[in-house]
Amino acid sequence: MRILITGAAGMVGRKLIARLAKDRTLRGQKITALDLHDIVPPQAPAIEGVDASIHTGDLAAPGATASLVALRPDVIFHLAGVVSGEAEANFDLGYRVNLDGTRALFDAVRLAAFAPRLVFTSSIAVFGAPFPEIIPDEFHPTPLTSYGTQKLMGEALLADYSRRGFFDGIGIRLPTICVRPGKPNKAASGFFSGIIREPLSGQEAILPVPRSVVHTHASPRSAVNFLIHAAGIDGSAVGPRRNLTMPGVAVTVGEQIEALERVAGASAVKLIREQPDETVWAIVKGWPTRFEARRSRELGFSAEKSFDEIIHAHIEDELDGKVAG
Amino acid sequence: MRILITGAAGMVGRKLIARLAKDRTLRGQKITALDLHDIVPPQAPAIEGVDASIHTGDLAAPGATASLVALRPDVIFHLAGVVSGEAEANFDLGYRVNLDGTRALFDAVRLAAFAPRLVFTSSIAVFGAPFPEIIPDEFHPTPLTSYGTQKLMGEALLADYSRRGFFDGIGIRLPTICVRPGKPNKAASGFFSGIIREPLSGQEAILPVPRSVVHTHASPRSAVNFLIHAAGIDGSAVGPRRNLTMPGVAVTVGEQIEALERVAGASAVKLIREQPDETVWAIVKGWPTRFEARRSRELGFSAEKSFDEIIHAHIEDELDGKVAG
Repeated sequence: MRILITGAAGMVGRKLIARLAKDRTLRGQKITALDLHDIVPPQAPAIEGVDASIHTGDLAAPGATASLVALRPDVIFHLAGVVSGEAEANFDLGYRVNLDGTRALFDAVRLAAFAPRLVFTSSIAVFGAPFPEIIPDEFHPTPLTSYGTQKLMGEALLADYSRRGFFDGIGIRLPTICVRPGKPNKAASGFFSGIIREPLSGQEAILPVPRSVVHTHASPRSAVNFLIHAAGIDGSAVGPRRNLTMPGVAVTVGEQIEALERVAGASAVKLIREQPDETVWAIVKGWPTRFEARRSRELGFSAEKSFDEIIHAHIEDELDGKVAG
Repeated sequence: MRILITGAAGMVGRKLIARLAKDRTLRGQKITALDLHDIVPPQAPAIEGVDASIHTGDLAAPGATASLVALRPDVIFHLAGVVSGEAEANFDLGYRVNLDGTRALFDAVRLAAFAPRLVFTSSIAVFGAPFPEIIPDEFHPTPLTSYGTQKLMGEALLADYSRRGFFDGIGIRLPTICVRPGKPNKAASGFFSGIIREPLSGQEAILPVPRSVVHTHASPRSAVNFLIHAAGIDGSAVGPRRNLTMPGVAVTVGEQIEALERVAGASAVKLIREQPDETVWAIVKGWPTRFEARRSRELGFSAEKSFDEIIHAHIEDELDGKVAG
């Protein structure tokens, strides 16, 4: 089992590599090679019997993807991409990395004609307001960002290339990943993680939106579970609709905070400072709230059942089981 | 009023040019220049006071679109594309013309920074079975052809480029155009027009599918009306969802034949020979049947009210009002 991972230096990529290093198998087969690609050098794990190789560069550069797929991986995880804020701020970079890079990878696989399983991380950013109360699987994607547009175009390519048999693709639309480890960042969605992560470490966090805001979350651990599950499912059971909205936990910000109180006590909640920010709220209003995700659940994808579980996953995976205070 | 038309040598392009030559105005302004582009030389109409110029070549070739938009048209009709069957048979050609050509045009407009109205002909081929009985505007596009995929990607670009203000785009998803003038062709959809066009000219026509098949049609005249209307509507009233499913007449093949009998008599209907073709039926089964098209109707787009009207439009526009027999 040879595995290629693009975007291997990113948060999800690193967690996927750690999981594969622990499992040592994928789809029931022993992992023998890991080819790790990113724009900056990803960290290669030292796993006995696994040939790990590091590749860096721009996927959209001529020949870059051909040399990657020449290794004929059995499974490709295509995680590479510039994030939403960056794709919005830098039009050319977003289209180059998220669209041209994706297409270059897909075309290299097509031309090498070995039809691997290919798992592509799309995003709920393919959806744009207004929405019904619960977004069904049949709801049309109408992105309101260039990032969402690029992901939607990648999804369309993935479905067509799979239909033609160039590869056996599964697109997974990730919900907001929460609790995101690391430092606070300037992403408009940052507060969803910040109001949990910072108080758990004894730090103050800002809440810029009303407690009534509804959003769907899954832990980084679930994101990795989605990827592993997507690598293993039967493509013929998926049919031609290859892009699946992942399950998640839909909660209000108020419910997030109640969960934090249950898990870490009132002292943690006191560290959340409400400081309304009209700019952030205006962005958040355009985001999807709650998904049906019926197809992905039927295909065996699963996420946490409650926001409490999401907080516990963070405490276990990032804080060695310990909460500040 | 300067107008650029790509795909100007195609059936819809020629009819649009004839209509503009008759109207002499668009959006209430006198037409002063018509820039006509296609892969083969389109026919330029001789209209007094209108500077018509002919351009040929591959839109995806370097620099091709920059020189076209350097003329800074007020309205661009982007009709160019290879058809469904060709895009399916020739993978590279389809993506090159339908995706790369479209993106090259959109990027040339973006870089020239003059924000014209841009009307793009998409297709109901962005939809793929299974469908609800009536397809609502909010139904997700899941194309089952490369052509439909390329049109969907063009729609996504159009919406994003419009949102960013690079142009003021309207994408119109055309239903099947019927009655298509000219000779029978090998398109799987050819019989929808053939069973009307051939009998009206005293020729035999083959019906390869059951009479119960439901499909949505609009006349070539309506297709031109959609384009003209799309050029004139207020973009701010359309909002960010820039791609609109056009109205049409949803009928069974049996109802098409009943309309033919009302218009041209039983002798015309006798020229239709039922010869079931499993291959054609298998393709047709994947096609959309009936659309709500609520948004486009609310925005003032209209088509024929009955299939009788569609037949009358063909007799008037193509047969000088005369029916054989």
